[in-house]
Amino acid sequence: MAQRLGRSTLRLDYGPSVEGFAAIGGKMEREGPLAEEFDLTQEDTSFGESTWEKAESRMQRTALDRALSKAGVCPADVDVVFAGDLLNQCVSSTYGLRELGIPFLGLYGACSTMAESLAMAALFLEGGLAERAAAVTSSHFCSAERQFRFPLEYGGQRPPSAQWTATAAGAVIVGKPGKGPRIRHVTVGSIVDLGITDANNMGAAMAPAAAATIGTFLRESRTAPDSYDRIFTGDLGAVGRDLLLELLERENISISARHEDCGLLLYDREKQDVHAGASGCGCSASVLCAHILPRLVSGEWKNVLFAATGALMSPTLVQQGESIPGIAHLIHISSGEER
Amino acid sequence: MAQRLGRSTLRLDYGPSVEGFAAIGGKMEREGPLAEEFDLTQEDTSFGESTWEKAESRMQRTALDRALSKAGVCPADVDVVFAGDLLNQCVSSTYGLRELGIPFLGLYGACSTMAESLAMAALFLEGGLAERAAAVTSSHFCSAERQFRFPLEYGGQRPPSAQWTATAAGAVIVGKPGKGPRIRHVTVGSIVDLGITDANNMGAAMAPAAAATIGTFLRESRTAPDSYDRIFTGDLGAVGRDLLLELLERENISISARHEDCGLLLYDREKQDVHAGASGCGCSASVLCAHILPRLVSGEWKNVLFAATGALMSPTLVQQGESIPGIAHLIHISSGEER
Repeated sequence: MAQRLGRSTLRLDYGPSVEGFAAIGGKMEREGPLAEEFDLTQEDTSFGESTWEKAESRMQRTALDRALSKAGVCPADVDVVFAGDLLNQCVSSTYGLRELGIPFLGLYGACSTMAESLAMAALFLEGGLAERAAAVTSSHFCSAERQFRFPLEYGGQRPPSAQWTATAAGAVIVGKPGKGPRIRHVTVGSIVDLGITDANNMGAAMAPAAAATIGTFLRESRTAPDSYDRIFTGDLGAVGRDLLLELLERENISISARHEDCGLLLYDREKQDVHAGASGCGCSASVLCAHILPRLVSGEWKNVLFAATGALMSPTLVQQGESIPGIAHLIHISSGEER
Repeated sequence: MAQRLGRSTLRLDYGPSVEGFAAIGGKMEREGPLAEEFDLTQEDTSFGESTWEKAESRMQRTALDRALSKAGVCPADVDVVFAGDLLNQCVSSTYGLRELGIPFLGLYGACSTMAESLAMAALFLEGGLAERAAAVTSSHFCSAERQFRFPLEYGGQRPPSAQWTATAAGAVIVGKPGKGPRIRHVTVGSIVDLGITDANNMGAAMAPAAAATIGTFLRESRTAPDSYDRIFTGDLGAVGRDLLLELLERENISISARHEDCGLLLYDREKQDVHAGASGCGCSASVLCAHILPRLVSGEWKNVLFAATGALMSPTLVQQGESIPGIAHLIHISSGEER
């Protein structure tokens, strides 16, 4: 039974386990420093499909198939799947998963979707609402650029604060408490908007939400940053990371020694032309499934915070002069053994 | 504690109550047969804002404010809000609710959002994950037409199967079991796609999902249609309603004597030029809050099924020749007294 530790944080005393997980990536991810940790990366980012949207759907389906297979279960064993993505109407999720026949709850949390979907899956287990749940998300550089900025063919210049939308997907299967990594706390974020209007500076739009959610979690859980081996944010990139650390320092919270940003891990910024780092739902999803969860399985890390951030950015509203709200949801995951 | 009655249906033995609810509408809704039942309708569908998107955000915020007020609580009393809408990046929800500071979980279920968000709110109560939760959604004819079909200024002809997107919002506050209407069952729908490709025939795209979810609920709950005073669908309209009844008849399930479609209630199709009826997240949301919940409060109805349907329609994927998947989530609501 979950215990409320404050308005935003739930302690999961039942503590559901991660039973399986998988990360899929494209060409840039295959050339990046985490390439070997992915379950599958593909040189051809069309994944054999005729459009970028269908490619992204294929990637999401492949991630879920792999995660199910690694958990040793089939779609009929899953009570509910939580999924969403960056594309309008979340089509990567709906088209990617429509043939599976799994009860489906669609989410929209922009790049926070991996944390939101995993939080929901874990909470459904914790609350006795499901016996096995899946969390899935994805992003694709080509579908996202076309939708949010410019068609690729336009060849628009990207400013230094811009991030590179990951072509990647991640899927996690959550089941009863067992040997796999366990979900111990969830902090549901609130929308934070400090007035950023630059659609090429998503890190700055998301950093205040990350700071708010991490601060809230530490306060409500009464724990300190040094209780955790690592504190991950989703895709703040170089600009957003600096802002996050500064915002938390103002509250006398120092996480810099333990903080890593998935957006700064996925690519080699020296060798790959990604400006401020990686972004997109697939960034934190794939880093979680390729890089973080395996270290919790092996016991190398005992306790990790995973706070994925979303810039709730709408091209329409930005054109209307509106600022970009951000949100961050946080999950505390421990290794399968005792805390 | 929720009891699983099958893969898709949960019986909510705790049975959280609806504490407050509100429906907001625009000009067409003000001229329709349910006008008097709305909390507020406004002749000026801009709601005093400079764009249609901001008007829709304003409407959603107003709906939630009213529902909170009727429940006698303030935003700080709400543990989590579930919200989503039809607009890209769900901006009516994120911009509409960003100033409230309530932990926010964004959903995308197209026109099924009222059922999805209310299901989530009820399940969070049932599972001990929240003590009070809100469910909110909206749609606006002008923002939806521009995004999904043509800008209004284009003056495109609408075929007879087309539906009129409601300019409306609904909000429900769910709390501990009490005097208010109680949520007794939830059926989480799966995605169903029978190959409809006509973006002007959403009813046909959604009817198979409605039939699947209603059939699943009746089978898993082992109840018959005559156990319910009314069985509501969200916005199938005239075309979709006929298809729903036919699909269920093939399974020897007859609901025609008790079935009503929110899309056929909101407007007077004889006097208002809405073709096959109303649609949009705001259609089922406002009919639930204006027309259905008050009759459960008064005890006129004892048991009602509310199955809101969503066409997961993407203009991009339809242009790529893809069909339109549908989904439907179902909620069984009883009057506050004994079942």
